[in-house]
Amino acid sequence: MSFADAKVLSITPLSNDESRWVSLHSITYKDPKGTERTWESAERRTRPAGADIDGVGIVAILDKPTGKEIILQKQYRPPVDKVVIEVPAGLIDAGETPEQAAVRELKEETGYVGVVSETTPIMYNDPGFCNTNLRMVHVTIDMSLPENQDLKPELEENEFIEVFTVPLASLWEECKKLEAEGYAIDARVGTFAEGILLAQRLKL
Amino acid sequence: MSFADAKVLSITPLSNDESRWVSLHSITYKDPKGTERTWESAERRTRPAGADIDGVGIVAILDKPTGKEIILQKQYRPPVDKVVIEVPAGLIDAGETPEQAAVRELKEETGYVGVVSETTPIMYNDPGFCNTNLRMVHVTIDMSLPENQDLKPELEENEFIEVFTVPLASLWEECKKLEAEGYAIDARVGTFAEGILLAQRLKL
Repeated sequence: MSFADAKVLSITPLSNDESRWVSLHSITYKDPKGTERTWESAERRTRPAGADIDGVGIVAILDKPTGKEIILQKQYRPPVDKVVIEVPAGLIDAGETPEQAAVRELKEETGYVGVVSETTPIMYNDPGFCNTNLRMVHVTIDMSLPENQDLKPELEENEFIEVFTVPLASLWEECKKLEAEGYAIDARVGTFAEGILLAQRLKL
Repeated sequence: MSFADAKVLSITPLSNDESRWVSLHSITYKDPKGTERTWESAERRTRPAGADIDGVGIVAILDKPTGKEIILQKQYRPPVDKVVIEVPAGLIDAGETPEQAAVRELKEETGYVGVVSETTPIMYNDPGFCNTNLRMVHVTIDMSLPENQDLKPELEENEFIEVFTVPLASLWEECKKLEAEGYAIDARVGTFAEGILLAQRLKL
């Protein structure tokens, strides 16, 4: 496989009647002054009934002798027609907790087996535009375990993911470098890097 | 005005023909193995022709005697039917740079006048679902300037924004508290808080 081969060939309008994964809605709402207004919104169709989130993002930390590193991946994303630098992530299956989904997706996408250390509040990806959301789950990976020596990702037949790691302390510089090389930066990776940068600069 | 009054009244399917702000597309693409596939995607219609981003988010830092604080705002968002904790943000007008848009939007939404100190790579909000994206622009605010004493936000007639500040060093705990109080957390705020938290915990 080669990311250089991946590209958009054509784009056509899609109606709600034809779509399987996404939909558009017109929302009639009362604003904070009591005035009735409308707003246009996009949604995923995949959220399990009764669930309050679509998926999880995974902050997976490797403890190396040279310092902590974060697991990232490269994945071609048709909506942006670029190879995007992302954290491992996935949709939650019906009946799964965010933590279970995170451990499962991390193993499927990277082969690593980890232990959950933290779960974030629900985060909304673009709340003026859509309702998609996730929780970030922090997972620590014990590199001394036998199962983390010989990694066996279990990707689906249409998933093409390249896994790599970056020192946490220089994630910001790495994002700038990757963008200069033509990669797109997912908001989770970039904003996480911003937080680290500011904490370092301002000595928080 | 009262955020408690804001709520969704009804939701109806919306077609591309009727929509003004958002649209759905079916993308035909070649995957990294050369196989032709389709992907469903949502877009904003508001990106200026030729532009590569939709908007900016603003990390606006106040230097107070008690420490650095970040400007946040509360805004009711119909797509998630909640009051969301966000950074000041806005769409870019045709011909504007991200930095110009950030200084303009910050003044309009909060009244503060600031100076740009940093601009991030382009960040994609949810690249498996849509193409919406932004750059984050970091703005520092000199609290000793006369224009930052008597703040005069210039909100549009349908904008209802409550501005507040939070110590940067405790942004994570503040996000957890705000979620417990019923607010939704925007991904930029939450992920930024995660980065600060991890930098503090791991002494990056």
